[in-house]
Amino acid sequence: MKFCSECGAPVTLRVPPGDTLPRHVCDACRAIHYQNPRMVVGCIVEWADRILLCKRGIEPRYGLWTVPAGFMENGETTFGGAVRETLEEANARVEVGPLYALYNIPHINQVYILFRARLVDPDVSAGAETLEVRLFTEAEIPWEEIAFASIRHALTHYYDDRRQGDYKFHMGTIERAPVKS
Amino acid sequence: MKFCSECGAPVTLRVPPGDTLPRHVCDACRAIHYQNPRMVVGCIVEWADRILLCKRGIEPRYGLWTVPAGFMENGETTFGGAVRETLEEANARVEVGPLYALYNIPHINQVYILFRARLVDPDVSAGAETLEVRLFTEAEIPWEEIAFASIRHALTHYYDDRRQGDYKFHMGTIERAPVKS
Repeated sequence: MKFCSECGAPVTLRVPPGDTLPRHVCDACRAIHYQNPRMVVGCIVEWADRILLCKRGIEPRYGLWTVPAGFMENGETTFGGAVRETLEEANARVEVGPLYALYNIPHINQVYILFRARLVDPDVSAGAETLEVRLFTEAEIPWEEIAFASIRHALTHYYDDRRQGDYKFHMGTIERAPVKS
Repeated sequence: MKFCSECGAPVTLRVPPGDTLPRHVCDACRAIHYQNPRMVVGCIVEWADRILLCKRGIEPRYGLWTVPAGFMENGETTFGGAVRETLEEANARVEVGPLYALYNIPHINQVYILFRARLVDPDVSAGAETLEVRLFTEAEIPWEEIAFASIRHALTHYYDDRRQGDYKFHMGTIERAPVKS
């Protein structure tokens, strides 16, 4: 942020009086601009013993597989956003189920919120930002081509839980991947 | 938002190509400015049979009671933010426990995320944005002076769960209060 979104004057980054963190502050109109983490909401979509994955048609991680998920929008609920993303990315109509996972990803200011969901009919197809949609059995999951660590975690937990016949809620934190030497 | 925070030119509100919702778009530098819901993170702080409430020293709801909670900051986790807010608002050191409630509040673009937490020592005091801090038994809870519907919901569920000896995770949506005639 370089300019005030309220008045167009340049902003400076400093700790406002009474605050503890640096903010973008406008000296012209005195607006303080806060920046906060965003939620990524999505679904683990079940169809019999299969789950739905989308091959990403946009960066980052173009060409890799993920569950349908995206940024929650103003005016919607977490589960409403998850259902919308699932429809947009996979043309998949779902009945949303329980909250399944919440992953903090502090180094990119994101929180992933994933629900289990039941596919209402198997007529799915790639949305505008998706190259391909497929219903995978566990044996078919392309573990080496999963787009995000959070989704790899969620799917690992999901299959562990399924083997035990008990789907628990999972919470965790995804740290920045170590730089490979 | 009236001006581009990247280049300072005026923005217009319209649906960008390939998008489905109106965004603030800069015609000078082509930046698209997304606005997303924010998370409010906090703790239901337990000390024996009491819980900690804070009397708000800031607007909105100045002078009413709530649990320690506030906007999650960039670079932190949900539970890290909840612990920080509890320290800032009540000078209360806690061990954070399980996720207790997630409330969607779509009409104000917020998601409340509340954890149960155990007070490490009862030496608590009002932080800068708090008028007073108190440890309440259930009988003492000032139900008519609770600041927010989300917190009233959470505390109602909390005491129901406690009577049943089983703290469940609660998810819900807080709708806009009907206008009183």
